Amino acid sequence: MLDKKANDDFKVTTGSLPASQKIHTSPALAPHLQVPFREIRTSDPQQPTVRVYDPSGPYTDEKVQIDLEQGLPRHRLGWYDERSVESYDGREVRLEDNGGATGERLAREFPVRHKPLRGSGEKPLTQYQAAKAGIITEEMIYVAERENLGRIAMLENAREKLSDGESFGAEIPLHVTPEFVRSEIARGRAILPANINHPELEPMIIGRNFLVKVNANIGNSAVTSSVAEEVDKMVWATRWGADTIMDLSTGRNIHNTREWIIRNSPVPVGTVPIYQALEKVNGIAENLTWEVFRDTLIEQAEQGVDYFTIHAGVRLAYIHLTADRVTGIVSRGGSIMAKWCLHHHKESFLYDHFADICDICAAYDISFSLGDGMRPGSIADANDRAQFAELETLGELAEIAWAKGCQVMIEGPGHVPMHKIKINMDKQLRECGEAPFYTLGPLTTDIAPGYDHITSGIGAALIGWYGCAMLCYVTPKEHLGLPDRDDVKVGVVTYKIAAHAADLAKGHPAAQIRDNALSKARFDFRWLDQFNLSLDPATALEYHDQTLPKEGHKLAHFCSMCGPKFCSMKISQEVFDYAQKLNDKEQGLAQMKDKFRENGSLLYLDEKEVAVKTP
Amino acid sequence: MLDKKANDDFKVTTGSLPASQKIHTSPALAPHLQVPFREIRTSDPQQPTVRVYDPSGPYTDEKVQIDLEQGLPRHRLGWYDERSVESYDGREVRLEDNGGATGERLAREFPVRHKPLRGSGEKPLTQYQAAKAGIITEEMIYVAERENLGRIAMLENAREKLSDGESFGAEIPLHVTPEFVRSEIARGRAILPANINHPELEPMIIGRNFLVKVNANIGNSAVTSSVAEEVDKMVWATRWGADTIMDLSTGRNIHNTREWIIRNSPVPVGTVPIYQALEKVNGIAENLTWEVFRDTLIEQAEQGVDYFTIHAGVRLAYIHLTADRVTGIVSRGGSIMAKWCLHHHKESFLYDHFADICDICAAYDISFSLGDGMRPGSIADANDRAQFAELETLGELAEIAWAKGCQVMIEGPGHVPMHKIKINMDKQLRECGEAPFYTLGPLTTDIAPGYDHITSGIGAALIGWYGCAMLCYVTPKEHLGLPDRDDVKVGVVTYKIAAHAADLAKGHPAAQIRDNALSKARFDFRWLDQFNLSLDPATALEYHDQTLPKEGHKLAHFCSMCGPKFCSMKISQEVFDYAQKLNDKEQGLAQMKDKFRENGSLLYLDEKEVAVKTP
Repeated sequence: MLDKKANDDFKVTTGSLPASQKIHTSPALAPHLQVPFREIRTSDPQQPTVRVYDPSGPYTDEKVQIDLEQGLPRHRLGWYDERSVESYDGREVRLEDNGGATGERLAREFPVRHKPLRGSGEKPLTQYQAAKAGIITEEMIYVAERENLGRIAMLENAREKLSDGESFGAEIPLHVTPEFVRSEIARGRAILPANINHPELEPMIIGRNFLVKVNANIGNSAVTSSVAEEVDKMVWATRWGADTIMDLSTGRNIHNTREWIIRNSPVPVGTVPIYQALEKVNGIAENLTWEVFRDTLIEQAEQGVDYFTIHAGVRLAYIHLTADRVTGIVSRGGSIMAKWCLHHHKESFLYDHFADICDICAAYDISFSLGDGMRPGSIADANDRAQFAELETLGELAEIAWAKGCQVMIEGPGHVPMHKIKINMDKQLRECGEAPFYTLGPLTTDIAPGYDHITSGIGAALIGWYGCAMLCYVTPKEHLGLPDRDDVKVGVVTYKIAAHAADLAKGHPAAQIRDNALSKARFDFRWLDQFNLSLDPATALEYHDQTLPKEGHKLAHFCSMCGPKFCSMKISQEVFDYAQKLNDKEQGLAQMKDKFRENGSLLYLDEKEVAVKTP
Repeated sequence: MLDKKANDDFKVTTGSLPASQKIHTSPALAPHLQVPFREIRTSDPQQPTVRVYDPSGPYTDEKVQIDLEQGLPRHRLGWYDERSVESYDGREVRLEDNGGATGERLAREFPVRHKPLRGSGEKPLTQYQAAKAGIITEEMIYVAERENLGRIAMLENAREKLSDGESFGAEIPLHVTPEFVRSEIARGRAILPANINHPELEPMIIGRNFLVKVNANIGNSAVTSSVAEEVDKMVWATRWGADTIMDLSTGRNIHNTREWIIRNSPVPVGTVPIYQALEKVNGIAENLTWEVFRDTLIEQAEQGVDYFTIHAGVRLAYIHLTADRVTGIVSRGGSIMAKWCLHHHKESFLYDHFADICDICAAYDISFSLGDGMRPGSIADANDRAQFAELETLGELAEIAWAKGCQVMIEGPGHVPMHKIKINMDKQLRECGEAPFYTLGPLTTDIAPGYDHITSGIGAALIGWYGCAMLCYVTPKEHLGLPDRDDVKVGVVTYKIAAHAADLAKGHPAAQIRDNALSKARFDFRWLDQFNLSLDPATALEYHDQTLPKEGHKLAHFCSMCGPKFCSMKISQEVFDYAQKLNDKEQGLAQMKDKFRENGSLLYLDEKEVAVKTP
């Protein structure tokens, strides 16, 4: 697919967002680290810049030249000195890794081949092992700096106001220290997904005492899309705020697609290895074996996948529990494993070999995302016995993973009505030793295909508030087709809203800074500041300009929604100005009336001054 | 504006939704009533039709010929016999009613003039007065039938499963009786907004023990849009499910625009009379008088406005409480009244004359929507003293309204982070004697202009769950410009999602029927049924067809999201079929393997059979 010609079109969106600049700060503990942020410029002299969390990597850095053929700089390679890492030849790429694609059907290989690394077992390798040993890694220092957004300085004037909230037991510190990061990882309450073979990655952390994160699923399916499109979607998703991406490719070219994505990804990349394993046995679930699966794990480990979804909780004994469901088993991985178990009438090889899987993950520091293969696919099936039986097993598996030195998070549903969401969160924390929860939505109703980013955004905001650490986005195409670029953007922005609403409600000490800056811009009629501070400046600008396109309108004290006479913010400011004068003894009551009449007439702009474009 | 030429373009969307039919049922208590529903046809022999609530009026009835120049049939006129209603000449339309517009600038008058009605005071007129007197009106019988959706029959097989939920003290009956409707109205816990001068209306009820309702704001602003566009938006909004609309027109032609809308509206119409009153004093807030306001109330009462937003809670003493806010006063009506109070340094004339306003409303059965003029316009201002001082006053005013025989609901915020939403609901119920709450969103973050249907849809779902009776939609254009037709649709659909998610979470006994029917269609790969049962069939179909456009794909057991090999629902069905066979003693274990291999190979469709359209 990715022949020479296709490669000419192989491009991604680069450049900064409006009025934004990529900056880097260096933590005192490790001055060689360069931790990225985005700073948004405003015209407010009191707050000339607003700093925001920025997962978009070098693509939004004007100073960096992007070369997709080389991949991103492998900056973490220098951080492994204390980890007894060894380089080795690695597994050869086989025909089946790309679904047997050859010739024109084979996507071009990534041009650079790096020898894989693995732990030699002498010293702690995984972030969990290091944390347990009391070691603070560079990754931990990095994420501490990153989570803080420089907030000690920012909070000086507003500490009290910005820290109310209901956290449901989360313990978000006013200031994140590297030691706090270490202790959260050591307690299993947070993960720092970072395969040593993905040194291009900018470290981030997932845990309920940190900012709520968002994952975007990308990946081709057997019936549509190409490698170039998927790399573009990866860059595009992080541009709008995706904190991790999952490559859910199926069909041909899985191996080569993934290599292009990982080498160019500044965020952790997750996969569901069973998808590729199934391709290797020609799509016949019952032909899956532990050997094929194991081979696939090694293949992906060497490429640098940062976390694996493993559906080891789908046990033979649970499958019959789904028989009365309205929508059966809706997880791809779950249904594949159910079929295998039932066919062989044997326990799942993923469950039986879970300790072996842990050994592989530990050697590369691949985090687990224990898959919820029996998640509900409809409101009717929410919180049923099948779902919760699996969740209990995931808790048991998390203990094994920790004992083997691995990092673990737990996947969650799915379709759940609002009143059943908190039960999920509470049970997950209880059953899984507070391991981070990572949910798909949940969708709060089944009746709106085409709008499932919204049905699920509601559930995501709620479960994020209750304690979910990462929200897997849902796009408008859910249930209907493969999301395109526009869908990816809408999905990510919707989930950034949910995550941010959750941060606010949890009482994250810095979350409200951006809301306040934007609202102040709104009240001051600094239209461009309002747009630039928003999650999607281009859309805000476009919507405004549909009715008031002239440059002068960017200074106007009204918009087309209410027009000049009925703008409450304008009137409200006049009220304020007036009240100010009342308080000013020198003015005196006598002058008030005249003064106010003057203000009053200002209210009434001549309509001729207002150029109108009828929609 | 609405000259001959414009009138040729004066058209609205009619016709049924896909696979849908307007049906009417007649309640046993009043067989002459015709209560409308929409029935969606499916290809499921077990559930050939699904009945849904339908506020769209005759516009979606294939059997009805729409004539906008005549208005809708005035079917309620025959229901007033017991109400001592008198007809009178009514107020003459004045130049100022249309903002002084003349000649080409004047929108054409609605062609038919009806003499207004008012109560003569002998017998109960308002639904509240009737309910208090123990009278069950035809409107009450109508809404009881409407709320039930025929659900006694539908629930026979699934009563238990469909009625779980957490209602936070709401008392939703399994079956709504006319007597229940009467008692809820008599207790002030529900309103049935229905001005006797709007006999075209199909009665509906707003209260937390009924289905959660959605309002759509329409109306031109001084800088854009025409009468024709606004009538079209009204019809369009109800087509997608708006239960009431508010005409928030400002600028010229307010009177004539409103007349066209009311005469053609099957749903209650609300207004904010202060907007028109302000136009009558040329936009100079301090020139407002009780006399001008009173005249405007009569004008609108005679036209048939069903509920009035009155900002009588913005009291002089509270205004200074907004001085430290980030966004001051963001309600148009609130800011106008604040300016008036401060200028005259007098108590609000709305507050002082509230009993007089009640007398007017009682004579026409206009419901109150007591406005929250001091609602927060940013996360920073949520739940502050200004907001709650006003809410306490609204509770005091509700008592006065009830004493005068009026129906009342209470408006609520605005911008509120998730953890502060329930405080609003609980306080409103406590302070306002359980009068229905009617909120704008609330928006759960300020940082996403362009997506405020979503930021607010999250808050709306939550507060609907907690007990809010009606949700005022927010469109993607909020804060940016006047919504167009597309924005209206997205706003309504988003809010139908929020309202339905709330109904499910409250445990509404019939809400889940539609979810189950759609999910069953999804699992059965009945694609068209899935689309037709959704809130927006056209969008679902369009999204599906972007990648798999052929007719044959509507029967395919996969979509482009996962492709044929990875469709979990397909695999899951195979698992079910297989399990079925396992249970069948005649098959025996020996045959299992072969049988399953056969199924397995079916899984693997030849890709050539799958026509692909690359996006």
